[in-house]
Amino acid sequence: MKIAIAQLNYHIGNFEQNTAKIIAHIGKAKAEGADIVVFTELSVTGYYPHDLLERKEFIEQSDEALNQIALHCDGIAAVVGGPRINPEPRGKKLFNSAFFMYDKAIQHVVNKSLLPTYDIFDEYRHFEPNKSFSVFDFKGHKIAITICEDLWDEQETQNEFGREKLYQLSPLKELSALNPDLVINISASPFSFNQENFRKNILVKNAIKYELPIVYANQVGAHTELIFDGGSVYLNKKGEIQEELKYFEEDFRVFETESPVQNLQPKTDYIEKIYHALVLGIRDYFTKMGFKKATLGLSGGIDSALVAVLAVRALGNENVRVLLMPSRYSSDHSVEDALQLARNLNIQHEIIPIQTMVDSFEHSLSETFKNLKSDITEENIQARTRGILLMAISNKFGNILLNTTNKSECAVGYGTLYGDMNGGLSILGDVYKTDIFKMCRWINRDVEIIPVNTILKPPSAELRPDQKDTDSLPDYDILDQILFDYIELNLSPAEIIAKGFDEYTVLRTVKMVNNNEYKRFQAPPILRISSKAFGFGRRMPLVARYS
Amino acid sequence: MKIAIAQLNYHIGNFEQNTAKIIAHIGKAKAEGADIVVFTELSVTGYYPHDLLERKEFIEQSDEALNQIALHCDGIAAVVGGPRINPEPRGKKLFNSAFFMYDKAIQHVVNKSLLPTYDIFDEYRHFEPNKSFSVFDFKGHKIAITICEDLWDEQETQNEFGREKLYQLSPLKELSALNPDLVINISASPFSFNQENFRKNILVKNAIKYELPIVYANQVGAHTELIFDGGSVYLNKKGEIQEELKYFEEDFRVFETESPVQNLQPKTDYIEKIYHALVLGIRDYFTKMGFKKATLGLSGGIDSALVAVLAVRALGNENVRVLLMPSRYSSDHSVEDALQLARNLNIQHEIIPIQTMVDSFEHSLSETFKNLKSDITEENIQARTRGILLMAISNKFGNILLNTTNKSECAVGYGTLYGDMNGGLSILGDVYKTDIFKMCRWINRDVEIIPVNTILKPPSAELRPDQKDTDSLPDYDILDQILFDYIELNLSPAEIIAKGFDEYTVLRTVKMVNNNEYKRFQAPPILRISSKAFGFGRRMPLVARYS
Repeated sequence: MKIAIAQLNYHIGNFEQNTAKIIAHIGKAKAEGADIVVFTELSVTGYYPHDLLERKEFIEQSDEALNQIALHCDGIAAVVGGPRINPEPRGKKLFNSAFFMYDKAIQHVVNKSLLPTYDIFDEYRHFEPNKSFSVFDFKGHKIAITICEDLWDEQETQNEFGREKLYQLSPLKELSALNPDLVINISASPFSFNQENFRKNILVKNAIKYELPIVYANQVGAHTELIFDGGSVYLNKKGEIQEELKYFEEDFRVFETESPVQNLQPKTDYIEKIYHALVLGIRDYFTKMGFKKATLGLSGGIDSALVAVLAVRALGNENVRVLLMPSRYSSDHSVEDALQLARNLNIQHEIIPIQTMVDSFEHSLSETFKNLKSDITEENIQARTRGILLMAISNKFGNILLNTTNKSECAVGYGTLYGDMNGGLSILGDVYKTDIFKMCRWINRDVEIIPVNTILKPPSAELRPDQKDTDSLPDYDILDQILFDYIELNLSPAEIIAKGFDEYTVLRTVKMVNNNEYKRFQAPPILRISSKAFGFGRRMPLVARYS
Repeated sequence: MKIAIAQLNYHIGNFEQNTAKIIAHIGKAKAEGADIVVFTELSVTGYYPHDLLERKEFIEQSDEALNQIALHCDGIAAVVGGPRINPEPRGKKLFNSAFFMYDKAIQHVVNKSLLPTYDIFDEYRHFEPNKSFSVFDFKGHKIAITICEDLWDEQETQNEFGREKLYQLSPLKELSALNPDLVINISASPFSFNQENFRKNILVKNAIKYELPIVYANQVGAHTELIFDGGSVYLNKKGEIQEELKYFEEDFRVFETESPVQNLQPKTDYIEKIYHALVLGIRDYFTKMGFKKATLGLSGGIDSALVAVLAVRALGNENVRVLLMPSRYSSDHSVEDALQLARNLNIQHEIIPIQTMVDSFEHSLSETFKNLKSDITEENIQARTRGILLMAISNKFGNILLNTTNKSECAVGYGTLYGDMNGGLSILGDVYKTDIFKMCRWINRDVEIIPVNTILKPPSAELRPDQKDTDSLPDYDILDQILFDYIELNLSPAEIIAKGFDEYTVLRTVKMVNNNEYKRFQAPPILRISSKAFGFGRRMPLVARYS
């Protein structure tokens, strides 16, 4: 049988564009002789529409789009993902469904059984789980359709509590009892650099265990925080990957299920993957919001330098405008490094020193603050003055402000709310400082784009004389390991200490993370590249006593 | 039988304090001769701990606390809520449980069946639903224990889609088949002014339908956004409310199940209820975060006036410090009204005019903005300058900034991000402007606390000459009705227009709401007093096309 996988980039709620894209690829697949073209999970709406699923007009538009798409399935079948109203009087009002279309009509509907409701996933909020299973015949083949998490029943929960399996049910076990010839899985599985092989392993294990070939079609493209990396595959029943589609871009492939040819993607380092993920994340945020131009503050430090490079790569140098805002604590080096980067990237830049505005605030507050010594207040006034200037550029010229906070400082609260924490989108809020160094070196592998001094000098916020990050934080190589254990691995402080880290450093770090939930509550959305990013996938109470 | 209901205010994760409180009330109930003392849902942890439930050390502390509490159940039984590790190898790792303690040990554990996973509820994220039912004997009575939502199986979903029931299962129907004499329900049901009778009706219906008396114990106190209003009740099997505990404060009551006496709470208007809810919300945020002092900007307008009154009521006038920050567009009236209020409330206040700082920004940006006309940018610079000053007070003196944005402007994005949207907690973000007027009049019912001119003058942001809110927004009495239909009732624009509202006004309002998801994403946590507040309970995608 000839299968087409359409790995496309959808826009949530943009039924017109999503429908047109799907119909165009049905035509393309038909032209190339495919029997079935497979789209991804909730393709008609884009994944994930969140509470738009609770709006009647949204579901009506989705139904209309699905019916329109079905009319184009003439001489070819398509598997399209979308929500479906639950016809039963009890239970959640929707299913997360796959529509098998043929002969200009929807012939079969399969509903998702395993509804991920953890981390960034909220599916049980909107969908009723399926509990009955069936396969159907198409051109002499018995087809079993599954949706994303349905293949993940083997998944273990987090390592605590000695749990075995997250789910009660195994959809593929149920389906395999019905003797299918082929399994189709439509997915929307987001990228995380530290689970890169996990997804493939799940697919390989399933193919081998049930001796079934699997067509796995995954969404590509970014929706605010979530970045979907594509990488759709076809595995034969021995679990060998026979076809592998591109990562971080749209792709379309037609193949014979019985073909021995392997079309695989080249292996890349995790730093390079994160780089491509972030570029896609920026580009899709702008494209899908209808924006073109970005701005950011360039301090001469490594974080803002990296964001500038990523923004130029995503949006083009003509669409990136930077502001240098030196204070009396900025070193000459910093301004020079920032200027050099702006010249290297050939981006619009200007210098607005902040001292007169800072003086103006300090003067106006002099009576109120009389006899009080200088502290974090004055540091924050500097950061917030920069925040106002950047937002003024943003408001006046329509350039969206990119936030440059990294994950390490976001974790410990080393940043000023309404100051350097400003921005429409946080580019590096899920990237640890140590990985930022690695990425900058990788960017400079052939040509020095980021001034080497920016990479080599000790990190500093430059908010008081001779300040260094290490004055208040552990060295980043230690800090980042502790943070990873606490945040990504969810280890307890005692467990982290037992791994050999200094007790005082661990407890202080954990306390900083816990004490700064309130700051992160108001942070911009963060491009997610790890298995546990700050934001929607990590829901911590503010008013709580953390032990 | 003699029952005690302990309606207490817990602190999430504060096992020491929660445990001490529970043990003290076991002692009190025993002293008053109660057979059973009933605490509320997840009492030992506080409701709701969110992803703290994923941390092993959190569950270990909870287990320890439960065991410690059980040791005090000597000659009295207690029903205490807490998480419990799922002993089965498959499924979510925890149950949301009720522990029946007697003879110094946990005698029975009942797990929650219906796990609310909608609006602000996320329970299926952490808990496995119970599917088996049993009752047990205690002192010759057959007791059935249920947990909060377990009694809500009759609940209908939102009115769209013609759905009937949200749940497949009816726990009380299952339990009633086992012939219990008494139903105990431990709850954590948050306040919303427009569902005030809904909860009582559910209880009455259940008591009548199954001819069973119900002990309903509800949590009181606020956890960041969520305000729990208490109002625990005991209903006899005819569905008559025999005992009703206080609203918005801790209460403790011991009563005979067969007693004819009715101890009911006085009826109050919804505006008064919201007032008490907000005061509790502020007080608990401060107490539980370990803060004492608040600050806010007083503009002379009605929103900041109301927040000042609420803050004084919650924290005491000695803990509230206000800043007047007039610009060249502030009317004399505004300053005078703000001063009068500060005098009426006897709170610390000072005046810092913002013009010199605004001038400093405009001067520094003059080259960049050369030949460009004044627009929203300059208005935002004023609002953000005020934001910096307030945060400077907050940083220097440790006063937490209270946000004064109301629900109407939060909905349509009529506010400046990093300016007047700043604050640790939004006090009025779930209160429509029309209700703010009502509340101010109610506050002034005996004495003019809020200057009457503040209430009577047309609302204005005073960011340009002679500006009025109605220059860019519909009249608030129209706007608020449209917003309520769109947000609380989830009606489509077509349905709102069909109710008789002007089409252009409806479409423009809905568009403003949709276009400002990005602003609300970075707003402070909002005290929730309605059935649909902005924030955690309303999850809308940012990068989406809204039709």
